[in-house]
Amino acid sequence: MTQGLQFDSQGRLKHFLTIEGLSRRTILEILDTAESFISVGQREIKKVPLLRGKTVVNLFFEASTRTRTTFEIAAKRLSADVINLAISTSSTSKGETLLDTVRNLEAMHTELFVVRHSLAGAAHLIASHVPPHVHIINAGDGAHAHPTQAMLDVFTIRSHKGEFEKLKVAIVGDILHSRVARSQIQALNALGAAEVRVIAPKTLLPTAVERLRVVPYSDMRRGLEDVDVIMMLRLQRERMRGALIPSEQEYFRVYGLTPERLARAKPDAIVMHPGPMNRGLEIDSAVADGSQSVILPQVTNGIAVRMAIMALILGPPAEVRPAARRGTRATA
Amino acid sequence: MTQGLQFDSQGRLKHFLTIEGLSRRTILEILDTAESFISVGQREIKKVPLLRGKTVVNLFFEASTRTRTTFEIAAKRLSADVINLAISTSSTSKGETLLDTVRNLEAMHTELFVVRHSLAGAAHLIASHVPPHVHIINAGDGAHAHPTQAMLDVFTIRSHKGEFEKLKVAIVGDILHSRVARSQIQALNALGAAEVRVIAPKTLLPTAVERLRVVPYSDMRRGLEDVDVIMMLRLQRERMRGALIPSEQEYFRVYGLTPERLARAKPDAIVMHPGPMNRGLEIDSAVADGSQSVILPQVTNGIAVRMAIMALILGPPAEVRPAARRGTRATA
Amino acid sequence: MTQGLQFDSQGRLKHFLTIEGLSRRTILEILDTAESFISVGQREIKKVPLLRGKTVVNLFFEASTRTRTTFEIAAKRLSADVINLAISTSSTSKGETLLDTVRNLEAMHTELFVVRHSLAGAAHLIASHVPPHVHIINAGDGAHAHPTQAMLDVFTIRSHKGEFEKLKVAIVGDILHSRVARSQIQALNALGAAEVRVIAPKTLLPTAVERLRVVPYSDMRRGLEDVDVIMMLRLQRERMRGALIPSEQEYFRVYGLTPERLARAKPDAIVMHPGPMNRGLEIDSAVADGSQSVILPQVTNGIAVRMAIMALILGPPAEVRPAARRGTRATA
Repeated sequence: MTQGLQFDSQGRLKHFLTIEGLSRRTILEILDTAESFISVGQREIKKVPLLRGKTVVNLFFEASTRTRTTFEIAAKRLSADVINLAISTSSTSKGETLLDTVRNLEAMHTELFVVRHSLAGAAHLIASHVPPHVHIINAGDGAHAHPTQAMLDVFTIRSHKGEFEKLKVAIVGDILHSRVARSQIQALNALGAAEVRVIAPKTLLPTAVERLRVVPYSDMRRGLEDVDVIMMLRLQRERMRGALIPSEQEYFRVYGLTPERLARAKPDAIVMHPGPMNRGLEIDSAVADGSQSVILPQVTNGIAVRMAIMALILGPPAEVRPAARRGTRATA
Repeated sequence: MTQGLQFDSQGRLKHFLTIEGLSRRTILEILDTAESFISVGQREIKKVPLLRGKTVVNLFFEASTRTRTTFEIAAKRLSADVINLAISTSSTSKGETLLDTVRNLEAMHTELFVVRHSLAGAAHLIASHVPPHVHIINAGDGAHAHPTQAMLDVFTIRSHKGEFEKLKVAIVGDILHSRVARSQIQALNALGAAEVRVIAPKTLLPTAVERLRVVPYSDMRRGLEDVDVIMMLRLQRERMRGALIPSEQEYFRVYGLTPERLARAKPDAIVMHPGPMNRGLEIDSAVADGSQSVILPQVTNGIAVRMAIMALILGPPAEVRPAARRGTRATA
Repeated sequence: MTQGLQFDSQGRLKHFLTIEGLSRRTILEILDTAESFISVGQREIKKVPLLRGKTVVNLFFEASTRTRTTFEIAAKRLSADVINLAISTSSTSKGETLLDTVRNLEAMHTELFVVRHSLAGAAHLIASHVPPHVHIINAGDGAHAHPTQAMLDVFTIRSHKGEFEKLKVAIVGDILHSRVARSQIQALNALGAAEVRVIAPKTLLPTAVERLRVVPYSDMRRGLEDVDVIMMLRLQRERMRGALIPSEQEYFRVYGLTPERLARAKPDAIVMHPGPMNRGLEIDSAVADGSQSVILPQVTNGIAVRMAIMALILGPPAEVRPAARRGTRATA
């Protein structure tokens, strides 16, 4: 059903809600398109006119300066007009329903909503109620999905490591509550990664985690053995209160990524983090700022990946876009 | 005095503060100009260059995401730069006076302030103190006026019902505290509506309401009899606390617009609401989403009407504007 | 060290952090460039394309609607894209460090950060950690410096009074805590003002104030005697609580600028204030709105001065800028 939602009848990307169910070809097409936007960020004049006269609405029901900023910059580089809406503080507090808020915005002839919401399924709910001219990008919904983050992550892996078929990847941290992990696992599996491991204390692993096609580890040293890519997750400090982990010091002692632990991975392994980092909690500064860290390239790539997704959804067809390398269009 | 304030010596619209005292010709000119902007919202590239290089300041002393957004979109479609200022949280809290805030903004050579304020008269006060190059649009001042809302309402009525002379219109809800109702009544009377009714419990009707040239009803069934247009108002939940109405359930039972009550109006009557709606309080979802509802077209029209008012005030003269149908210019 | 920080190896302005150590020639070059931007604010279309395709980030760790607005307007008139970030409410509260926030923004290929922070040295700290393509403007750091404010102040003085060598200037108010005063004193001394006086109760004067090359006065009447320029400071009401001054009434009685006190200065003396004003506390309304006040021209000039600094830092070299008068480039 989601796949029907994400593509139109010609198989063109219509919404971007989840990685789940996306074909390898679709993911690669997005990565190829993103490649063509990397150069825009390096020009003197960082603008292309693909979305001129379109309105992108950052519809954030949950605060996130960083994610909002990346979408705002991406949209402005595509020459769109951007409207920032932090909704918790206004309409919803006036008692209007989520769908009424959305219907109002679409009645203003806005074209693209970037939605962040604390409830899983919010972006899907919206996407299944908007008319054909309105497109939705999920910028994080509860513990469900954060698909643009996963796309920039696999983009970054590909640009440093090439083919996925040979790669062992470890995702470390609060797998249970992480929308980022969920989307990363789906993307890595769709791209055919050799092995995806998840490393966490048992209290932070979903039950029946193997169904996600991952190999679970509770011992970090063993989990990192020989991997090519380490993807750290941000630890939500709120989890402490829930007694799911004993204390910050104890967590760092057991699951913090230190230079010693990093040494268990392949010598050329890369280290990733979606940010914002808790230095000294899930990651040691020596690693975060070390030579194997690709944390800042992730941010740079995030702009290009978001531009690509917006352009694929809302821009003119790829045939008439000189800047974009032509990928293949997938039907799901 | 207001009329002197709203027009310059050549009779051109200078500020847009209230409907009160506007001639039928002026209102029709604005509606005709708005008509010419409807098509902009339907284009691929939703931009016209009429306000390029001008700065529009959304000066909101009272929060309203929705109204701010409509003005922001309208201004950006006219190619203006937009500055959003939510003032309660900053300068005013630093003890600066309202007029000092305004004088500072005008010294920055900004051209148009869209003002929302919780005090009646705020927009007038500002308009009477700004230099000739600065223009004010009232986006709602206390319980006094909300003239752009009323303009988009009569625009919507005209586009669905044509001539006003034959129309019976009912406004339902908290007439006493509603700036929207006040402006709607003035617009409808200026346009020569056959009959304007107001329907509310006696506690929510102004004393001597007949002076507004309306026919008051407390019985909703009788008030809706045979009308062409039903304009619902939003009920402020704060009124409950003031004991002006007994309870939400009781209010809906007596004054909520249900399909049964709607059936008292003409079969082709249209239903309007300025939003945000309280579903199940002043309006039943079956009506809000029903075939007679024009609530979402109101929102769409709101962009065109606000573009028209901004363009008339700040754009090049209509003679040189190819897009705009030429109306007649009124002197008050 | 700061000077090394503010200029690149060709002596071109790279960051604008403090007036301290700037040469007279550099300051005059900025003033001359600002002169060339004054006309932009008077045009029908207030836009020049110097920063098209660049991203300016207003990075405000301390709220200031007014200062943020002036930078936002200046950047938009230069055709830059502007991202507004009020950080206290988001990332920092998520525990990210200041430098991580900055590194993330620079990884997005943004070019210019306008930084306001409550801690002295924040802008310097950031400037000393950014890569060559990123530029910093200090929009106020703790009690340390507010250099763009001082630049617009000396611009305003020059446009009303001409040569600095003949001018006696008095700065009145809380010298001890004022970043504005600190930067003003440095600018006036660099430009060779004949005499810079500071007038304040002893509790609001730094110890060894003479080292700043100013003449201190505690008696306002004597301090204003024969001066050409009076620069009032805003009194932070918080100081009351600290018992540094007795009461608002008492402060105004002794240090408020009244018409009677103003009469002690030269008859053509000008009165300045950085805003927002506390009318009736540090300044009488009769003076603030009187014929000698240049408080609103300061605001107007502030846009041109900020455009000039942004253009010098980030725009194409002056040689290819037709609009800008060519100044001389200083090495510090």
